[in-house]
Amino acid sequence: MSQSSVSAIRWANNQLILLDQRKLPLQEAYVNCVTHVEVADAIRQMVVRGAPAIGIAAAYGVALAAAEFGSDRDRLHRALETLADSRPTAVNLFWALRRMRGLIDGASVADLFPLLVEEATRIHEEDLQANLTMGELGADLIAESGRGALLTHCNTGSLATGGYGTALGVIRSAYRRDLVTEVFADETRPWLQGARLTAWELCQDDIPVKLIADSAAAHVMKTCAVKWVIVGADRITAHGDVANKIGTYGLAVLARHHGVKFMVAAPSSTIDFELFSGADIPIEERTSDELKFVQGTPLAPEKADAFNPVFDVTPAELIDAIVTERGVVLRPNAEKMLKLQ
Amino acid sequence: MSQSSVSAIRWANNQLILLDQRKLPLQEAYVNCVTHVEVADAIRQMVVRGAPAIGIAAAYGVALAAAEFGSDRDRLHRALETLADSRPTAVNLFWALRRMRGLIDGASVADLFPLLVEEATRIHEEDLQANLTMGELGADLIAESGRGALLTHCNTGSLATGGYGTALGVIRSAYRRDLVTEVFADETRPWLQGARLTAWELCQDDIPVKLIADSAAAHVMKTCAVKWVIVGADRITAHGDVANKIGTYGLAVLARHHGVKFMVAAPSSTIDFELFSGADIPIEERTSDELKFVQGTPLAPEKADAFNPVFDVTPAELIDAIVTERGVVLRPNAEKMLKLQ
Repeated sequence: MSQSSVSAIRWANNQLILLDQRKLPLQEAYVNCVTHVEVADAIRQMVVRGAPAIGIAAAYGVALAAAEFGSDRDRLHRALETLADSRPTAVNLFWALRRMRGLIDGASVADLFPLLVEEATRIHEEDLQANLTMGELGADLIAESGRGALLTHCNTGSLATGGYGTALGVIRSAYRRDLVTEVFADETRPWLQGARLTAWELCQDDIPVKLIADSAAAHVMKTCAVKWVIVGADRITAHGDVANKIGTYGLAVLARHHGVKFMVAAPSSTIDFELFSGADIPIEERTSDELKFVQGTPLAPEKADAFNPVFDVTPAELIDAIVTERGVVLRPNAEKMLKLQ
Repeated sequence: MSQSSVSAIRWANNQLILLDQRKLPLQEAYVNCVTHVEVADAIRQMVVRGAPAIGIAAAYGVALAAAEFGSDRDRLHRALETLADSRPTAVNLFWALRRMRGLIDGASVADLFPLLVEEATRIHEEDLQANLTMGELGADLIAESGRGALLTHCNTGSLATGGYGTALGVIRSAYRRDLVTEVFADETRPWLQGARLTAWELCQDDIPVKLIADSAAAHVMKTCAVKWVIVGADRITAHGDVANKIGTYGLAVLARHHGVKFMVAAPSSTIDFELFSGADIPIEERTSDELKFVQGTPLAPEKADAFNPVFDVTPAELIDAIVTERGVVLRPNAEKMLKLQ
């Protein structure tokens, strides 16, 4: 299904097979889910992560619930809640669950399972198609400002989506069009999505990547002719404020300071038209152990406290372009965002 | 000697005893140096780090060279060069070596060793005194803007200096004067000076510290009422541009964006009056393995390239105050910097 070499989410033999992203790049291991609770746990524990991928996995989780509970609507509704409780920030999760719920509530057939598998597969395929479209739209913007270096944060590639990627999809398309000299990838502490996942995907595609410490981004923008910072999104408000991986907001401030353009690439399912201000987006805080340990190795004194918000909010004013499969919004605001509804 | 519980550098039994900062906080191990080459290696490998501490260690290294070579000026001069070649960015190293060289070239006695030990000890003691002075001067500035949260980067405490610390000395003094609600410590990738060393020092002093990912600084400035960002320096130009640990420049841009004040605390030995522009400061690049491994654990794909500049330059325009033991310069420029000469 994917247009690149990595497949993070597969449905086969009535199971959801997830590439275990906690173990990359050292190990290519898979987690097989046969119940919706296993899917919710996999999302919570970040076996699968990335806003679009979470939505897709949850949709397959609903299909698994139908295998468990048949057409028992009460139990299916509770399964939807269990899946919704897995992570709070990315809105694609709730969007996908709403779509699955619509089918559950509207279907008249006795056997929901094949219907739900079909719908989850459709969500998966649509996401890949959206990414391919965004890739071209984003690359068009890069073409306008000319060939140069790009900087990205977190992982927004095949691993984070139904395939190809959002921000990394734009980078892939731009690279194929010879618009990219090199890609700087923030390592993205604490979970190291950049070092572990983005560097891995780009290496697999032979796209030249330079891994940097997150805090080197300002120095790189000043000295390495970066043209665009390109990131994904976990939730976009009706005004164009963007919640994304911690560090995104700082990059947007730094990009503006250096005259570097700032692009957000995300499918329209990431837009939450019911929220107006970024301040209203729930920001997940994860355990301080993510900061204090790396793969079991302690990094900090045991009694040190840590603060680990894993998302932040970038206000629309700092964003040059929001790229979705429905089109591009330049310098987003509430009025312009409506065209994506 | 130190006014806090940690002693990174000790001279005893004609040996230089260095707390091995590569192993903190998991292990309190010491490296004993009996030759100047061992000291140069310890600096290069970051057994001892922090601009003032490097200068002090190098000064003791010169004393060890006199134990090795007696009054053989040629060999002593070569030892000075070996020590100077250890690391390129921090200017305190060259300042301390110049001071030791002056003594070597000017002394008429046959036995240089006791003279050089005395001079190294004086450099060490003066650094501690400078830090205590800076602590009060910096705390005075914080008092003017009122009690609040502080954010710091890297490690600038007892471990990085002759004792007490530069930026961390200011934080210690401010905390004693009840001006500090909490201290946010950037973990400071790739070497994790913040997580491993600053958090450790603050825990030992019972000063409330919250460790954060470097990329969380913008979110923390926006949401956690940070009043000051306080950092040290590895080299300050005659115009007030500041080279310091990678990430400092980005913090200064973010601080200005958020109306947070930005303070640099460093002894006057950090000022290089022969350099005018920050662009002329040599920026050390260290091995990509610092990014790709943490304590032996690989984090990134083996074939991924990495770019690891370990310092950056903050232009004077982004700095609200440079605090030295000779006084404070607000909004530094070439003219104001002259008062510190």
